[in-house]
Amino acid sequence: MNIFDVIIIGAGPAGITSAIYSSRQKLKTLLITKDYGGQMARKTVAIENWPGNIEISGPELIKNFEKHVKACDLKIKEQEEVSKVIKNKNIFEVELESGKKFQSKTVIVCTGADPRPLEIPGEKEFIGKGVSYCVLCDGPMFNNKNVAVIGDGNAAFEAVLFLAKYARKIYVVGCNKKIPAFKDLQVKALATGKVEIISYVFSQEIKGNDFVNELIYKKRDTKEKEKIKIDGVFIEIGNSPATGFVKELVDFSKHDEIKIDFETCATKTKGLFAAGDVTNVFPKQIVIAAGQGAIAAANAYKFLND
Amino acid sequence: MNIFDVIIIGAGPAGITSAIYSSRQKLKTLLITKDYGGQMARKTVAIENWPGNIEISGPELIKNFEKHVKACDLKIKEQEEVSKVIKNKNIFEVELESGKKFQSKTVIVCTGADPRPLEIPGEKEFIGKGVSYCVLCDGPMFNNKNVAVIGDGNAAFEAVLFLAKYARKIYVVGCNKKIPAFKDLQVKALATGKVEIISYVFSQEIKGNDFVNELIYKKRDTKEKEKIKIDGVFIEIGNSPATGFVKELVDFSKHDEIKIDFETCATKTKGLFAAGDVTNVFPKQIVIAAGQGAIAAANAYKFLND
Repeated sequence: MNIFDVIIIGAGPAGITSAIYSSRQKLKTLLITKDYGGQMARKTVAIENWPGNIEISGPELIKNFEKHVKACDLKIKEQEEVSKVIKNKNIFEVELESGKKFQSKTVIVCTGADPRPLEIPGEKEFIGKGVSYCVLCDGPMFNNKNVAVIGDGNAAFEAVLFLAKYARKIYVVGCNKKIPAFKDLQVKALATGKVEIISYVFSQEIKGNDFVNELIYKKRDTKEKEKIKIDGVFIEIGNSPATGFVKELVDFSKHDEIKIDFETCATKTKGLFAAGDVTNVFPKQIVIAAGQGAIAAANAYKFLND
Repeated sequence: MNIFDVIIIGAGPAGITSAIYSSRQKLKTLLITKDYGGQMARKTVAIENWPGNIEISGPELIKNFEKHVKACDLKIKEQEEVSKVIKNKNIFEVELESGKKFQSKTVIVCTGADPRPLEIPGEKEFIGKGVSYCVLCDGPMFNNKNVAVIGDGNAAFEAVLFLAKYARKIYVVGCNKKIPAFKDLQVKALATGKVEIISYVFSQEIKGNDFVNELIYKKRDTKEKEKIKIDGVFIEIGNSPATGFVKELVDFSKHDEIKIDFETCATKTKGLFAAGDVTNVFPKQIVIAAGQGAIAAANAYKFLND
């Protein structure tokens, strides 16, 4: 069997940058991915913080990234998911859901993260019936309706800005006393005139009949329960990193992110690197993921040549 | 006096990204810089590893970066150099060569690095008479001539690729047994048919009359001295970070780079951050500097709000 120098898993900004760097370093490179762009594909507002582009849509930036990596000298397996990575002596074996197997001297994990569920009563029951994790996909259905966005981070406020084009009223329901989202997003959200912020509460239950109609939350200071009438609930409380396939080879943060050495993007397993939103990096940002992808590729190269 | 939330020093990829992030976070931001682009302005070959652009010239990428930062809500002082940063209680005072002073709660140092001199006899004497640190500036003068590039890292080989458009023959004179430059650059350099590599030697002296005509080097294994006849010497042995103004507030690596905590870009002084080529990051790359700029800005924000 052919042995690659590096297998990169995932083609968001971290994986694509890793692949560009690895192939330019003349490493025998395989990129395995479900799709292109990762979370950028679900970006709901224009991207304004990719340096050099004052404003660019998620899909447009993805298209540029995809074109770039496809112009490089490497192998790509698309529409494939990795089921398991094991290390056998000094060689990694990467097994796909499809049953295919590949071998490599190093691996860079760039699988990003999926939306994190709230895990309260009614959430699962009403998925597709008013509960959603994707405003880009489902927001337009709530034209002139009242919705709640659960969460108070950047993603929550980005969701609010998108929803404001459609919804009549948007409650932002968050657990922190002090809202952690970037100020510019908060200011823009309030400027829509559609937003009411409910801070320092825990969401308790989502209720409805055929469709969601109520959200119950508890105030963290007084312990009182209150409810709001809404037609939809968007859950934006962060992401679960996609790491199951590699769990025996890495350490995890308390948010289940892969712990890395930030200088090299190395994990606890020699030759195994991770970059981007799948790691414990703060904050999760496209340009930071891309930078880490380059660091991981340079250190994989160094590892192979030392 | 007005107190800024953050003063960013330098407008290369790290400083510009820091400034974009800081202003979007609604921090009261001042960017102080000599010029735009930092080392990108001296990039001699097209940039092929800025994700999303298969190939872009240094000046074009700088123009995009400059436009982006100028579209943001911040103050910019151009054509200014910082002479000193001191910390007085919890406030930083930033003094410019021009005598102006500014105060800020945090500072992000993104001043990049300047070419490092070789410090051998003849080097200073023949600057502008065959000795150069900038192939982009001086390379075209050596049309159909023989030149030496001293150094064996990426910058040296990038210089070779540029010089190959002009020079007749190019010696690459490096001190390492194993050449550390990326393989793709080495392959491209050799493919020009103009390159002879002299490895594992120390350059000893540059000689000439009115103009450079000889380079003397010593073999590291046999200690023998040899010489080559050349018309020009390009010195590409790395950079000296521009850090004098901040030297009492930070620790340095053995290459005089500012030591940072790679997770946060923090230095040993609370509220003082550094990002990009001025730090001990490996490798020095545009996308890595940009990613660090974003990390530094997010952590300056966190520092101000914690």
